[in-house]
Amino acid sequence: MYQINENYQKLPGSYLFSTIGKKVAAFQEENPDKDIIRLGIGDVTQPIAPAIIEAMHKAVDEMGDAATFRGYAPDLGYEFLRSAIAENDYKARGCDISADEIFVSDGAKSDSGNIQEIFAVTNRIAVCDPVYPVYVDSNVMAGRTGTYDPKTETWSDVIYMPCTAENHFVPEFPKEVPDMIYLCLPNNPTGTTLTKDQLQLWVDYANKNGAVIIYDAAYEAYISEDNVAHSIYECEGAKTCAIELRSFSKNAGFTGVRLGFTVVPKELKCGEVSLHSMWARRHGTKFNGAPYIVQRAGEAVYSPAGKEQLAKQVAYYMNNARTIKEGLKDAGFDVYGGVNAPYIWLKTPDKMTSWEFFDYLLEKANVVGTPGSGFGPSGEGYFRLTAFGNYENTVKALERIKAL
Amino acid sequence: MYQINENYQKLPGSYLFSTIGKKVAAFQEENPDKDIIRLGIGDVTQPIAPAIIEAMHKAVDEMGDAATFRGYAPDLGYEFLRSAIAENDYKARGCDISADEIFVSDGAKSDSGNIQEIFAVTNRIAVCDPVYPVYVDSNVMAGRTGTYDPKTETWSDVIYMPCTAENHFVPEFPKEVPDMIYLCLPNNPTGTTLTKDQLQLWVDYANKNGAVIIYDAAYEAYISEDNVAHSIYECEGAKTCAIELRSFSKNAGFTGVRLGFTVVPKELKCGEVSLHSMWARRHGTKFNGAPYIVQRAGEAVYSPAGKEQLAKQVAYYMNNARTIKEGLKDAGFDVYGGVNAPYIWLKTPDKMTSWEFFDYLLEKANVVGTPGSGFGPSGEGYFRLTAFGNYENTVKALERIKAL
Repeated sequence: MYQINENYQKLPGSYLFSTIGKKVAAFQEENPDKDIIRLGIGDVTQPIAPAIIEAMHKAVDEMGDAATFRGYAPDLGYEFLRSAIAENDYKARGCDISADEIFVSDGAKSDSGNIQEIFAVTNRIAVCDPVYPVYVDSNVMAGRTGTYDPKTETWSDVIYMPCTAENHFVPEFPKEVPDMIYLCLPNNPTGTTLTKDQLQLWVDYANKNGAVIIYDAAYEAYISEDNVAHSIYECEGAKTCAIELRSFSKNAGFTGVRLGFTVVPKELKCGEVSLHSMWARRHGTKFNGAPYIVQRAGEAVYSPAGKEQLAKQVAYYMNNARTIKEGLKDAGFDVYGGVNAPYIWLKTPDKMTSWEFFDYLLEKANVVGTPGSGFGPSGEGYFRLTAFGNYENTVKALERIKAL
Repeated sequence: MYQINENYQKLPGSYLFSTIGKKVAAFQEENPDKDIIRLGIGDVTQPIAPAIIEAMHKAVDEMGDAATFRGYAPDLGYEFLRSAIAENDYKARGCDISADEIFVSDGAKSDSGNIQEIFAVTNRIAVCDPVYPVYVDSNVMAGRTGTYDPKTETWSDVIYMPCTAENHFVPEFPKEVPDMIYLCLPNNPTGTTLTKDQLQLWVDYANKNGAVIIYDAAYEAYISEDNVAHSIYECEGAKTCAIELRSFSKNAGFTGVRLGFTVVPKELKCGEVSLHSMWARRHGTKFNGAPYIVQRAGEAVYSPAGKEQLAKQVAYYMNNARTIKEGLKDAGFDVYGGVNAPYIWLKTPDKMTSWEFFDYLLEKANVVGTPGSGFGPSGEGYFRLTAFGNYENTVKALERIKAL
């Protein structure tokens, strides 16, 4: 008789955003007249920029013509896209990353979940707490996290690095040295980040201790401060210790278009073994490329028109972030983030738990946010609101919250 | 110090089609004047059908308008697509599969590689030999295959079911009962298949022995004979033992568009554990949906216009298949397949090995095929040609082969 992967049975509950989705759907069904404003899941609302729409139409036409039709894409992704990425996201920032160190994918969620596959199951992972749940969940599925303690909501073999108001959301080096360190900067969910100098310390730590950093920079487009790195490769020595994950979902609104990429420098080696070769093998065996049309959409992100249009889109969301942050401050909340990231992180009032505040906000203000505890035990007592709504709804949501 | 997944080091060589790609590129560089005809990789050449192009343009426009923009897709895929699949691929064939048993993905290669993740590493897999390399390779990466013997080109813990001219390419029940049985029917690479009655025996075998069947039906659109099942769920009892993988790459030319789906019936359980729930969890954690535009393209596959246009496309390729098969027969080759599948499987002449014949054909006729041994040890001495070229090139390739 076949057996299942028992690690799945260890996972408590369901994926955070599925749970929220179900709760909201149930509330809407019971209250069909209520106008719910969703500032929960980090999904964008602005339409795809005109330059990208134009590029997709052109690519669709190419696919309909035998002379320009494209079948399977090259294993790593099309050269036109990888070159645009290398040029704009790396060389322009002084990072020596070449096009053939870039692996185009269907999005950073897939890469975040899949990247652990090339590492030993015995590796010990460290995560910021709170953080995007996919890192821990995908490691649970792989059997890398030990046993779950429902009381503390922690895994025995995961090293948690608490990031709270007390330490200004800056993770401290753990007592036990981890093998794999997940860093999501700017951070989801806290909306805070490290300075480049602080990040350099992590790179030095990883190189010194033989750890690998999985660096998720999905929100880099929202960085507004000069002393914050857009890529970990701005730090000296990062190429020998870090893999970087990037997304088009937040800078270009591709949550429904699906595109991302992972950088694995050729210098990154475990002993003699090149992680670049390993990821290439994984990519070539268990994946078959992002759609041609979508890769052309990605290329348009880097066109002059695309850049201009997307800068406005990012500014639009950051204006929402300011609106939320200032509105919450006016209402007496303790708030964080929102300066280098589209997320606002707030302390729940009156010692409510995160889920209590979720229910309270949904029922009383018909506003959906995300409970901080869903991102890790140190997220308890916090709550995330996103700047990805449209402006009118964001203003309306804040009015409702202020009126509570 | 972190460690890598050592299973990757066990993989011999690179992914088959990457190797072929490199060999062909090298030959072309040395012989820039040669007109190479590619009948190797199973990549289509006909452009996307007009009904689908129209649907994609419409979806692109929707993405550019705030009122119709779509962000993250529902976890399982859009209802409009899952309903069309359930209706057309299942209910119309008398299979009781509902829309919520269908998981939309970015393609059957991803699903083929990922599906093993929900099973125990201790499970013993069985594969037809020869077969699509992803099944074995993804299990190697997961650590399920034991050690590799370069002499026999087999893995110690994989159960091989030889399919050769001697047994008419019909796998026999293995001596040792496997836990997971991969069946690719119509078969890639042999282009042969089982009758529905023969498939029913496998379903009965799996149910009786507590095995799960991973049924890859990527080529079902090419089935021309009435006694062949298009879905394993046409067999009685399949819902308690089988997962079905389907692709849009071959029936609709989506190799560069990327869309597939997996069916996990709710009745399929390992003890008390629902595999449907497990795959939903995997899908929700390590994947974020196929692009909206591509899901609309998939929906158009099932429109009246789409169906009509795609029937012609399939007929076009099957005309190529006939051309290849008859041409090879005229040239004195032993040939198989090509009736219910777009692949022609031939015995190499003069006892050449598969790779010897690959080089011979590339150098002398400038035609690219796929060495049978790349699909498994019992593929040695065979060679695959695909019907996915355009007709003119296919005719030209056959003329060159006949002239050898």
